Amino acid sequence: MARVKCVVEYDGTGYSGYQIQPNGKTVQEEIEKALTTMHKGEHIRIISSGRTDAGVHAKGQVFHFDTHLSVPENRWVRALETLMPADIYVKSAKYVPEDFHAQFDVKAKEYRYYVRASKSRDVFRRRTVFHFPRNLDIEKMEKAVKYFEGTHDFTAFCSAKTTLKGNKIRTISRAELHRNGEELEFIVQGDGFLYNMVRIMMGTLLEIGEGKKEIDTIPRALDEHNRRLAGFTTPGHGLFLWEVNY
Amino acid sequence: MARVKCVVEYDGTGYSGYQIQPNGKTVQEEIEKALTTMHKGEHIRIISSGRTDAGVHAKGQVFHFDTHLSVPENRWVRALETLMPADIYVKSAKYVPEDFHAQFDVKAKEYRYYVRASKSRDVFRRRTVFHFPRNLDIEKMEKAVKYFEGTHDFTAFCSAKTTLKGNKIRTISRAELHRNGEELEFIVQGDGFLYNMVRIMMGTLLEIGEGKKEIDTIPRALDEHNRRLAGFTTPGHGLFLWEVNY
Repeated sequence: MARVKCVVEYDGTGYSGYQIQPNGKTVQEEIEKALTTMHKGEHIRIISSGRTDAGVHAKGQVFHFDTHLSVPENRWVRALETLMPADIYVKSAKYVPEDFHAQFDVKAKEYRYYVRASKSRDVFRRRTVFHFPRNLDIEKMEKAVKYFEGTHDFTAFCSAKTTLKGNKIRTISRAELHRNGEELEFIVQGDGFLYNMVRIMMGTLLEIGEGKKEIDTIPRALDEHNRRLAGFTTPGHGLFLWEVNY
Repeated sequence: MARVKCVVEYDGTGYSGYQIQPNGKTVQEEIEKALTTMHKGEHIRIISSGRTDAGVHAKGQVFHFDTHLSVPENRWVRALETLMPADIYVKSAKYVPEDFHAQFDVKAKEYRYYVRASKSRDVFRRRTVFHFPRNLDIEKMEKAVKYFEGTHDFTAFCSAKTTLKGNKIRTISRAELHRNGEELEFIVQGDGFLYNMVRIMMGTLLEIGEGKKEIDTIPRALDEHNRRLAGFTTPGHGLFLWEVNY
């Protein structure tokens, strides 16, 4: 048996999420179906770095699986390509030591969230950018975003629907906001993320930009572990799992 | 009665074209439906700068219509916005003199065609960029594209399916090819375009880039009016009607 590590890009629009669920099509299911076909019906299970929610996209999701087939690395990519739907693309496949684990060995993840901060729409970006047609004070948002960096208890930035039992302390190594024309790009890197964490961070930044909340809302919410001090949860379709580091 | 000129952006993916046809949903139909609703059921017909084919997109298609409603210009945009599907966006509306005609008064049009010149796919651009995973000599294509500029008989770059009875002499004022990362952008401006003309121009450039045809294929095809000397017709989904000038 050999272990293979893959990087996959997907447009999450048509999926009810990444992980296999009783209802609705998932990305994991599509990949497992293709691998099972390659293995002549033997069911192949994949383990990914973590799930993504319904509508969320990935530029660099990572998964691993075990196989008894001896296929050169570049052949995995080409063979999977012929079996994948148009909205999923396995970019690379590499043999890794058998103790590599796509979920447990994650060192850091990067997410990006895109917002169209303009009254006008962009029909071509409607599935990948959240349209927020209000006046925003971008400078204020750029200051606020820096409060996310460092090691904090992110309870205030976690959905109440979480099933997590461990602590909610995470280290954010990079949090930046960039303006590109009418779009805002929020880049956030950290050693781990809670349920809906990036989307609540983004919602908080937008409410600060609108003037509904002050900049110090972020340190206060972090200190008081108070979800109500943080902002709304932005929709999934503006979010990308950008990169996973091991 | 007053005449209104509108600029509209649309994602052509879900449409069987622009102009009303017996089968399949069209962009014109959707716009007329919205205007008819605004006019309380009175059927409003729109006249556009020209049709676009199935799957072709627009950043700046132009149409006009006549109305007896007195609505301020910015209200037209807001009212239409509430009635439009997610893939059509009426960007602007202006009152124009009653002799303005969106089709007959066109002075120039600009089209853009996008190609992904890379082995790898981009799932997020699959509906708006033509994936052409072959090695291309871009410098050769950049030289070739210049042969399109000027006044020529474009018979060789017109689909045999055309129903046009007039002459096929057109003036191209600008023809450029740009590389942006893994994407090629073909920009072409002219006083008029024949059926499938931009898509055949693009296909010819790609065959030159691949080494299947020589650069002088273009002047020869133009001189000899020979469709067979020109290249294949690239698919509609990489094409954008970018701007219409009056």
